[in-house]
Amino acid sequence: MIAEITAKKLNTSQFITEQVAAIRAAVGDGTAINALSGGVDSSTVTMLGHRALGAKLRSVFINNGIMRQGEPERVAAIFKKLSVAVEVIDAQAEFLAALKGITDPEQKREAITQTFYRQVFGRIVRESGAKFLLQGTILTDVDETVAGIKRQHNVFEQLGIDPQVAFGYRILEPLIQLRKDGVRKAGQALGLPAEVYNRPPFPGPALSARVIGEATAERIETVRQATVIVEKLLKNVKAFQCMAILHADRVTGMRNNQRDFGQQIEIRCWDSVDARQAQPTKLAFPLLQKLAKEITTKVPGVVSVTYNVTSKPPSTMEAV
Amino acid sequence: MIAEITAKKLNTSQFITEQVAAIRAAVGDGTAINALSGGVDSSTVTMLGHRALGAKLRSVFINNGIMRQGEPERVAAIFKKLSVAVEVIDAQAEFLAALKGITDPEQKREAITQTFYRQVFGRIVRESGAKFLLQGTILTDVDETVAGIKRQHNVFEQLGIDPQVAFGYRILEPLIQLRKDGVRKAGQALGLPAEVYNRPPFPGPALSARVIGEATAERIETVRQATVIVEKLLKNVKAFQCMAILHADRVTGMRNNQRDFGQQIEIRCWDSVDARQAQPTKLAFPLLQKLAKEITTKVPGVVSVTYNVTSKPPSTMEAV
Repeated sequence: MIAEITAKKLNTSQFITEQVAAIRAAVGDGTAINALSGGVDSSTVTMLGHRALGAKLRSVFINNGIMRQGEPERVAAIFKKLSVAVEVIDAQAEFLAALKGITDPEQKREAITQTFYRQVFGRIVRESGAKFLLQGTILTDVDETVAGIKRQHNVFEQLGIDPQVAFGYRILEPLIQLRKDGVRKAGQALGLPAEVYNRPPFPGPALSARVIGEATAERIETVRQATVIVEKLLKNVKAFQCMAILHADRVTGMRNNQRDFGQQIEIRCWDSVDARQAQPTKLAFPLLQKLAKEITTKVPGVVSVTYNVTSKPPSTMEAV
Repeated sequence: MIAEITAKKLNTSQFITEQVAAIRAAVGDGTAINALSGGVDSSTVTMLGHRALGAKLRSVFINNGIMRQGEPERVAAIFKKLSVAVEVIDAQAEFLAALKGITDPEQKREAITQTFYRQVFGRIVRESGAKFLLQGTILTDVDETVAGIKRQHNVFEQLGIDPQVAFGYRILEPLIQLRKDGVRKAGQALGLPAEVYNRPPFPGPALSARVIGEATAERIETVRQATVIVEKLLKNVKAFQCMAILHADRVTGMRNNQRDFGQQIEIRCWDSVDARQAQPTKLAFPLLQKLAKEITTKVPGVVSVTYNVTSKPPSTMEAV
């Protein structure tokens, strides 16, 4: 049973001092490694690990090719400014190869997970010699999986490290007593900029979850460009989450008086408190038309834009 | 060159008298046949033909299984009230068989056209012994195809009647000098109810054009039910055309806390003067949410509803 520290009760300076000490004590003369995604959890862990271990922590950012526009550069720049060395690994080809031909959302998710853990990050961990793995697991993640040993055992398996010979390896999870709001508070105290600690959630499988059907490099690029426009035009909209989704269905359109069998982008923008229930954000009609105009003008191949007007439930926030 | 009669210049009583006389003169002691779809053109032709020929005209309404809810009954009831005998032919199985496995919109359209002309209506014409075919061709149709002989030649071919032996056959097109607004005026003068002569346009391939992907009986039924809701809730909206479209893409939804990989309905509602350009109708947000709620509640399998916010161009009014 993990003792929860609520955001309200969280004393950030005490928490940071204790976690830094615990990481130092655990790693000792060894070295540690962690994967930074740019999300609030892994960013906060990176800051804690950096404070505890300095150069003895190797932080890697894996560019999986399904990230938002400019994301690897953005994350690298943020941590450079914080004087934290982050190694950017270009693994785009490996991820796109793993996604090839897959249309089922569950299989897509699985392909990304497998490529990340076993193939790319697993290889880096195994080759690094580091025996300590820093992970941004939070209490909500634990609630959602089997707690304790079994869970850590699974991480080793995922990394392709035989649990039987994994004696030397250890996973450190300094955020395990916190929930998302507590992590944001700790991240802020550790000096992360607001754009990181207040970052809206983004799905694990990244833009591949925003593509219905096969996530090819071209289709990822299409939804990436639409995402830029949606995030730009809806920047000042107070919403829980906004997204662009590329459909696999083709719809008829017209370009220069010619029939153009094109693509459709669906926009979703949610009002929600806790993500369990959500309503479509009431966007002004001219703004919806502006989104449609800019997307069909600037994103190659897109001739149609819709706005989702369903509530959750029966919808979910993401489409796949 | 066909001499156009504009709606403004159309003298309906003179027009009806002349066309009735022309039909009578042409058919003489013979018999005529026509296919009534319930649209304004074929309904007006049916009224003209009935006035000219009475029982010597056989009007058939072919139920192709891809019509709106209650459509065959509605059309039959309207003409019964006008004392015009209409024969309803149940050809649902033939059309659905022809659509089986077809996902390409052009092939779908072609399958429906072929099944209508060559298979179902062609068979009825050939077996009827009628040599005169009444057609609701209007001037706009002529503009869109090759004019004159070639066009009529094509109709015989479509009907499976060898043009070489088609000497006896003749096509009568009493509306050929009119455009849509003129036909509405003539239809009204012939006693058609407003729901017929003011009927919003509906695509030739009917509900199969409102289904992206394969038009199975089940999927046609899904979009038919969504269409009922869209037409009911948008009845008082002043729009050029409103429609429900069933997507082939599956999206994630939730039912009773269970993941439900369901279907999506897209609503389109257009403001337009002449269909060449169109803007999405500015529907009130609560109305959009009501549409989503009613469709996801009442139409089995649908978990998501979107509203199209693109203009034409680059969109078209129909999706396929």
